[in-house]
Amino acid sequence: MNALASTSHEAVATLGALIGVGLGPGDPELVTVKAARLIGAANVVAFFAKRGRASHARAIAAPYLAPGCEEIALLYPVTTEIPFDQPEYVSSLQRFYEDCVMRIRAVLEAGRDVTLLCEGDPLLYGSFMHMFARLDARFRVEICAGVSGMSGCFAAARQPMAWGDDILTVLPATLDEDRLASRLAETDAAVVMKLGGNFAKLRRAMTRAGVIDRAIYVERGAMPGEKIMRFADKRDDEAPYFSMALVPGRGRRP
Amino acid sequence: MNALASTSHEAVATLGALIGVGLGPGDPELVTVKAARLIGAANVVAFFAKRGRASHARAIAAPYLAPGCEEIALLYPVTTEIPFDQPEYVSSLQRFYEDCVMRIRAVLEAGRDVTLLCEGDPLLYGSFMHMFARLDARFRVEICAGVSGMSGCFAAARQPMAWGDDILTVLPATLDEDRLASRLAETDAAVVMKLGGNFAKLRRAMTRAGVIDRAIYVERGAMPGEKIMRFADKRDDEAPYFSMALVPGRGRRP
Repeated sequence: MNALASTSHEAVATLGALIGVGLGPGDPELVTVKAARLIGAANVVAFFAKRGRASHARAIAAPYLAPGCEEIALLYPVTTEIPFDQPEYVSSLQRFYEDCVMRIRAVLEAGRDVTLLCEGDPLLYGSFMHMFARLDARFRVEICAGVSGMSGCFAAARQPMAWGDDILTVLPATLDEDRLASRLAETDAAVVMKLGGNFAKLRRAMTRAGVIDRAIYVERGAMPGEKIMRFADKRDDEAPYFSMALVPGRGRRP
Repeated sequence: MNALASTSHEAVATLGALIGVGLGPGDPELVTVKAARLIGAANVVAFFAKRGRASHARAIAAPYLAPGCEEIALLYPVTTEIPFDQPEYVSSLQRFYEDCVMRIRAVLEAGRDVTLLCEGDPLLYGSFMHMFARLDARFRVEICAGVSGMSGCFAAARQPMAWGDDILTVLPATLDEDRLASRLAETDAAVVMKLGGNFAKLRRAMTRAGVIDRAIYVERGAMPGEKIMRFADKRDDEAPYFSMALVPGRGRRP
């Protein structure tokens, strides 16, 4: 029983369905059995990537793609070049998402399903959500959960993250320093995402919150070129946008 | 490069390895390809369950188990009958975990691997962590991330949970009402776990925090008998211990 069932269940049977498939943190073997089946059965796949770069999502899904599968590459015009609170960023992304929706909708209206390949978990900070929010009213949408990028990093770092009654807080490093420091101080466990240019600020916030000595830095977790070290041991402030910091909880441990 | 590499890498080659395998939220198809491979290759599996009940973990893994695989059932003497802050609970759990460690260690010392089947993600509120913490110094331990129970609930409820720069807070409903209310009020998105006997308190906290109208109640998410509804529409205060409440974020959406 799902009392939240959306209008999409009333969609006309001749329309195609949008299938959002979570791919996990990067290792193709961390794709679920269900995702592998859905990808293998797909006639049309879509995936996001930065313009001019290979798509991570496509690379993870590659071992499961059927020969002759049609591919729709959705190429971000900008990612981190413009601050996300600038009107230019917002309008550029808006136009991009509208264009993606038009391309996907054209296939669905032709009666064909579109399998959208999503890194990590589709409903946790995923670009899939922007398509879902715009297409769910008219089309049938299926969602297959995936191993989150965070979970991939926990395992890569071999870090038990949250125990018993720990509070776990997931924070974007884009927050201002005061807010980062206070949130880090008042939680039991934390995951900090989107380090990139925010690294030096996060280092100061972690020091103020008194958590820097148990924090861990994870770069490319569960992917080739993985780097994991104590946060305090990182000597420079250079970090890719998708690196993470983990502050493991120390909760109830009988 | 993993600068956190533990002493376990120096373990004597003739000892067996502990392999912690995340099984996902409940649907056997949400097991990862890697987990399915590891389970299929296992000669000895261990799993937790409540004494007198079937093991959820074993049920999820069942389709992948090799014939003749040896099974070690680790049966909790208590779960929620005694409050977790009572000395009786702590000592009972302590004895239980020590007994589990002894049973697993005996197999590892005989040179055989033990594959510990873990619901959800092994490093996020998992019983696996108690074994890992006690065995990692002496034995080689491998960890395979899984789809978390939370992610299973997001998909089951079809709820985009965290967008862009949302802060996501994971809260145990065991916290006192004031703390629940303040944490719910100051986060963008929340997952509340372990509802059980804490349901009425959580309802009051959600009302005070002004989030009850967008909260969702999920019971047995991604499992048979799944129930999903608007939290505000739930008329009684009865909820299983492992039910969850979701408060979806409303963050940046170009």
